[in-house]
Amino acid sequence: MNNITIEHILRAHKIIIPFIHNTPILTSGTIDQICKANLFFKCENFQKSGAFKIRGATNALFSLDDEEIKNGVATHSSGNHAAALALAAKWRKTKAYVVMPENSSEIKIKAVQEYGAKITFCAPNLEAREQGLEKVIQETGAVFIHPFNDPKIIAGQGSCALEFLNTQSGFDYIITPVGGGGLLSGTSLAVAAKSPKTQVIGVEPELANDAYLSLKSGSFVPAKNSNTIADGLRTSLGSLTFPIIKKNVSEIITVSESEIVLAMRCIWERMKIIVEPSSAICLGAILKKPQKFYGKKIGIILSGGNVDFNNLPW
Amino acid sequence: MNNITIEHILRAHKIIIPFIHNTPILTSGTIDQICKANLFFKCENFQKSGAFKIRGATNALFSLDDEEIKNGVATHSSGNHAAALALAAKWRKTKAYVVMPENSSEIKIKAVQEYGAKITFCAPNLEAREQGLEKVIQETGAVFIHPFNDPKIIAGQGSCALEFLNTQSGFDYIITPVGGGGLLSGTSLAVAAKSPKTQVIGVEPELANDAYLSLKSGSFVPAKNSNTIADGLRTSLGSLTFPIIKKNVSEIITVSESEIVLAMRCIWERMKIIVEPSSAICLGAILKKPQKFYGKKIGIILSGGNVDFNNLPW
Repeated sequence: MNNITIEHILRAHKIIIPFIHNTPILTSGTIDQICKANLFFKCENFQKSGAFKIRGATNALFSLDDEEIKNGVATHSSGNHAAALALAAKWRKTKAYVVMPENSSEIKIKAVQEYGAKITFCAPNLEAREQGLEKVIQETGAVFIHPFNDPKIIAGQGSCALEFLNTQSGFDYIITPVGGGGLLSGTSLAVAAKSPKTQVIGVEPELANDAYLSLKSGSFVPAKNSNTIADGLRTSLGSLTFPIIKKNVSEIITVSESEIVLAMRCIWERMKIIVEPSSAICLGAILKKPQKFYGKKIGIILSGGNVDFNNLPW
Repeated sequence: MNNITIEHILRAHKIIIPFIHNTPILTSGTIDQICKANLFFKCENFQKSGAFKIRGATNALFSLDDEEIKNGVATHSSGNHAAALALAAKWRKTKAYVVMPENSSEIKIKAVQEYGAKITFCAPNLEAREQGLEKVIQETGAVFIHPFNDPKIIAGQGSCALEFLNTQSGFDYIITPVGGGGLLSGTSLAVAAKSPKTQVIGVEPELANDAYLSLKSGSFVPAKNSNTIADGLRTSLGSLTFPIIKKNVSEIITVSESEIVLAMRCIWERMKIIVEPSSAICLGAILKKPQKFYGKKIGIILSGGNVDFNNLPW
């Protein structure tokens, strides 16, 4: 089913509804005044496991049958996908094995442990992560669940935009962050089917502008190693997500590190909610290009709220 | 109208409804698991001006006629009442004069300025504040609006519990912080009228345990100067609030500084919302006395979310 359609997203949504939150949509009069636009924030920072990632992980795990899943599931991730997979595996009553870079943030390690996954630490580079994962899979027989380049994951992440569009209509833009592109591609498919006049925009850090370069050149450009504060957005696009994004996303906007921090602080101060840098980046794009968004109705997916409070960027 | 009744609270609510948010009530599965109880959080941290204080201030200002208010309103406050009065004065189209200690937090000074109030700074002690206020009133003819010891303020703050009880019933406990006692006394009046089986509990810092000592001894005990992190709760009870609390509040629980910080971090991490120490203290009381609250249905008023992010307690 590499040709993912709205039917897959609807089915994913039906599968995951018993487990996830239909997260609230918040607005802020003050931020609307600052941006001179009408902003609607879909708060996946309030989602189970603290991020939208639980949508895809839950869909993936409940789409596998008992036989397929009997030896557990595995992934490598430094972040929210690891915690999501661990929690979804708990619900699915199977084991989760997670290969995490040894420099992962304490709060994310803690979350994965609390949900009962087995963690194997590795050196903080892609090669060590892939080798570590290979070894875990050989030893356990667990099924690999890719963080984004998987039709079930993409369909699951698309369910967030479905909920958004079930509540609000007439958006000029829907904006999501883009790392590997699971959320952005799923969102773009849902929006193309349900609200075709709405343009979908992806936002990424200037320091990890691979999606911008890929869309501009028309062919895949990998992400360089970067330490952008938006740690969920360091990844390259995947072979499944890139073509979907190429077809359905109108623009990628890049945002500097200081603009990300400014936007994060703005959301914390004005909305009194906690979002991680990878989520705040979407407001960063609006603050960066005010004339583009002036007077528009805009939906923003606040993707997650897992922040290390011992290591804040101010 | 020193004998404040539910009618005054209902009237206050009607007056302020066009201006304030009916704030959301949030729950957290994880915190319920930790506390083994059913907790409902009334999120006044999402309220206009970032705290419940806008309820009382708005009621006070819209209860005065144009003639009474023509020279503006004045108060002394280091915190949320100052910002609330400034915003309410803007709505009421009159001037606000605020005497603030020169060591007030930057974020609170900024808020008062943004809402257009005129600030006079003074030395950080009660005498200087009262003298500063006296001078401002003489010069301007502004009306003094006390932060809590005023029937209109108490009735306004009571409207929060009204909204709470309009949405949820069957609470065993409703818990609020207590500083000067405006919120606690207003809440206790609303609960006594609308849900008489619900017990109302006030929570204050061990370092500012004047309400605890007053209730225990039966006569007013003033607060000692303290630097509790819960900066909204450093004040003594007032001549109006104390008798109401004495009559309607079943218990005052005191919480240590480290317990306040732990509870604040728990809410930030688990609920992804920003509350100030003076609000987090209520969860601190539940974490401190788990056996008392085991299995109970509990309403907590999260009073505000104005936090100085440059000066976090961890």
